[in-house]
Amino acid sequence: MFTTILENIRKTTPLVHCITNYVTVNDVANVLLACGGSPIMADEEKEVEEITSICTALTINIGTLNERTIKSMRKAGEKANELSHPVVLDPVGAGASMLRTKTTFDLLEHIKFTVIRGNISEIKTVYLGSGTTLGVDADISDEVTEENLEESIAFAKRLSERTGAIIAITGAIDIVADNKSAYVIRNGNRMMSKVSGTGCMLTAMIAAFVGANQGQRLLATAAAVCMMGLAGELAYQQVVQANKGTSTLRFSIIDEISKMEAITLNGGAKIEAK
Amino acid sequence: MFTTILENIRKTTPLVHCITNYVTVNDVANVLLACGGSPIMADEEKEVEEITSICTALTINIGTLNERTIKSMRKAGEKANELSHPVVLDPVGAGASMLRTKTTFDLLEHIKFTVIRGNISEIKTVYLGSGTTLGVDADISDEVTEENLEESIAFAKRLSERTGAIIAITGAIDIVADNKSAYVIRNGNRMMSKVSGTGCMLTAMIAAFVGANQGQRLLATAAAVCMMGLAGELAYQQVVQANKGTSTLRFSIIDEISKMEAITLNGGAKIEAK
Amino acid sequence: MFTTILENIRKTTPLVHCITNYVTVNDVANVLLACGGSPIMADEEKEVEEITSICTALTINIGTLNERTIKSMRKAGEKANELSHPVVLDPVGAGASMLRTKTTFDLLEHIKFTVIRGNISEIKTVYLGSGTTLGVDADISDEVTEENLEESIAFAKRLSERTGAIIAITGAIDIVADNKSAYVIRNGNRMMSKVSGTGCMLTAMIAAFVGANQGQRLLATAAAVCMMGLAGELAYQQVVQANKGTSTLRFSIIDEISKMEAITLNGGAKIEAK
Repeated sequence: MFTTILENIRKTTPLVHCITNYVTVNDVANVLLACGGSPIMADEEKEVEEITSICTALTINIGTLNERTIKSMRKAGEKANELSHPVVLDPVGAGASMLRTKTTFDLLEHIKFTVIRGNISEIKTVYLGSGTTLGVDADISDEVTEENLEESIAFAKRLSERTGAIIAITGAIDIVADNKSAYVIRNGNRMMSKVSGTGCMLTAMIAAFVGANQGQRLLATAAAVCMMGLAGELAYQQVVQANKGTSTLRFSIIDEISKMEAITLNGGAKIEAK
Repeated sequence: MFTTILENIRKTTPLVHCITNYVTVNDVANVLLACGGSPIMADEEKEVEEITSICTALTINIGTLNERTIKSMRKAGEKANELSHPVVLDPVGAGASMLRTKTTFDLLEHIKFTVIRGNISEIKTVYLGSGTTLGVDADISDEVTEENLEESIAFAKRLSERTGAIIAITGAIDIVADNKSAYVIRNGNRMMSKVSGTGCMLTAMIAAFVGANQGQRLLATAAAVCMMGLAGELAYQQVVQANKGTSTLRFSIIDEISKMEAITLNGGAKIEAK
Repeated sequence: MFTTILENIRKTTPLVHCITNYVTVNDVANVLLACGGSPIMADEEKEVEEITSICTALTINIGTLNERTIKSMRKAGEKANELSHPVVLDPVGAGASMLRTKTTFDLLEHIKFTVIRGNISEIKTVYLGSGTTLGVDADISDEVTEENLEESIAFAKRLSERTGAIIAITGAIDIVADNKSAYVIRNGNRMMSKVSGTGCMLTAMIAAFVGANQGQRLLATAAAVCMMGLAGELAYQQVVQANKGTSTLRFSIIDEISKMEAITLNGGAKIEAK
């Protein structure tokens, strides 16, 4: 299912411009290398347009945003749009402060995103800033469960319609949707929530996957989500076998991604088309 | 001894607002998750008050301070005081530059800290900025040893009296004191000094421990200090058994913290009330 | 060959002031401790002169430069020159944006560097900013190979003559040269290119090595290059034996450096004087 997707990444080594938070930036750089891409971090307003121009894709993560970097995000995103490069948004903490919410809304207004990835709470905040009135959608639950799955998928599709972006909602159950189709992914592991950065890493991987597979953006996004989840499962096995803890889980995820062949990914992906 | 302390953290998952240096920030985030808390890093002046408001505790670490973040530290600290949230100070490098010393003094003047943690040299600098003349205390030694232990404890108690904060002096021997009581802790390992970030991680853990145990702040601080030291001992055993190096020590500390049960902590804590 | 070099570091624990990018800063701090030095990160203009004054050496890495830190780099470098402290430059991404190229040129103009370390492409950009017209040297290949080795060495020597700095070009084959002599080093491993930060770590190690061995700067630089490459080889053996991935390579490099004795380094160094 994902054989070509993976091959395209490893053949083309997509260079991803990351404007990302300083908490998980090292893991983001290393996971990009592990999956077959290449990272370049640059957040100074004076160089972001030029840097994004030499890249294949851009990822904007607002995790430790500040006045200075907000301007750079905007500028880089607009330039990437101009060049038709894929742009992926990770609205970390949108809803937690006015500044994060406002920045998310502002970015949505000026930049056309290819993919938006967040947890359900962040994605709900994105929804509020996506240009129409609230409506019933704001009642969507705070967790995607088997019970509210259909409703959550419909929500993701509507948001995709509004924004033009693929929506990736990650949690215990993941949803990847455009305005027509959706995938439900059930890979991953509860222990991953005890590790900082799995979301940020996934967002950057999506940029690499989509950058190398521009004709199959939805599938490429789903592939990245499956790979991160499956890597978490494989890493968890090692943690249990060796009686280790969360730090071992963290680095083993990157180990597993660096080793993962298409056959493993295809066999381990718990994905369902909806 | 620490059973309830640990339970309270793991039951309530205290959210800790961290304004911390970019060197060790990833370890700080992961150790907070490992011990049972949850991190949020935010240092932009425009959002720190709001972010701190949704948290249980705040930690201010001046490790890579700059003009912009100094303002954010002050603002966040004042807001946390207003809300009666615990605030923990890590005066990294106080005494090494005028800016760090001045910032430490300025923070001490405007923010009431719940706990101040540092090495003896940083804590001595704090003393100078704590509002009275120097006196003999400035003669305190540059290392806490068995020989000067009583004197060092007395110094910590006096500084606690002056500042109203619990004082945690860490090194080969650790002291945790308020103006009346003190604990002496002898956990830990010499190899820990060859790893960057054990101090920063401990400071953030103290914020989580105190945040979840506001009725027992002194004991909660001591519990965090014991846990970090004991984790260092257990990690060191693994380094030796597998013939590894300092990087293994670093991540094993977080592994051990993520696995540590109250029974292990209670059994391994080398703590003495003074 | 490197026995005294290593002893000098471990005896004197050189304190290295790092103005370095936030992507790999944690690895830089930990590798400095691992090799026997000690790190201090400080990038605020108001304190860099004072911080550099208490250190043995300074490293300037432009990896995530911004307007604010560029000023700090300049100020710290000039102060270090004034004090005759070794200053090591890592022109990360020079050539990738006007800002990085211009900053590199500006630093070269105002600061006398002791060592400049980069990949061949970055070093070629340094060459363009080193004060004379282009000439044929700009035709130097984009990779150092056995075929163009003599030519590359001659290029490094000429650049050293121009800048007064030792030039370290790292890649599959490494060259360390001053204006008269050169070393060719063939340690290392292809998998190291799948890990972020080996270059940044090496640059900081060079600062520590040169700081502790000011009478033998060329040999000290070569020693650091050999140590990083050999650590990569030893770490790679562990990755293969345990069937791990790139994250294990990354932390095992630091493990190996922390354990490496002179006898191992002397025996494993694949170095040739030219």
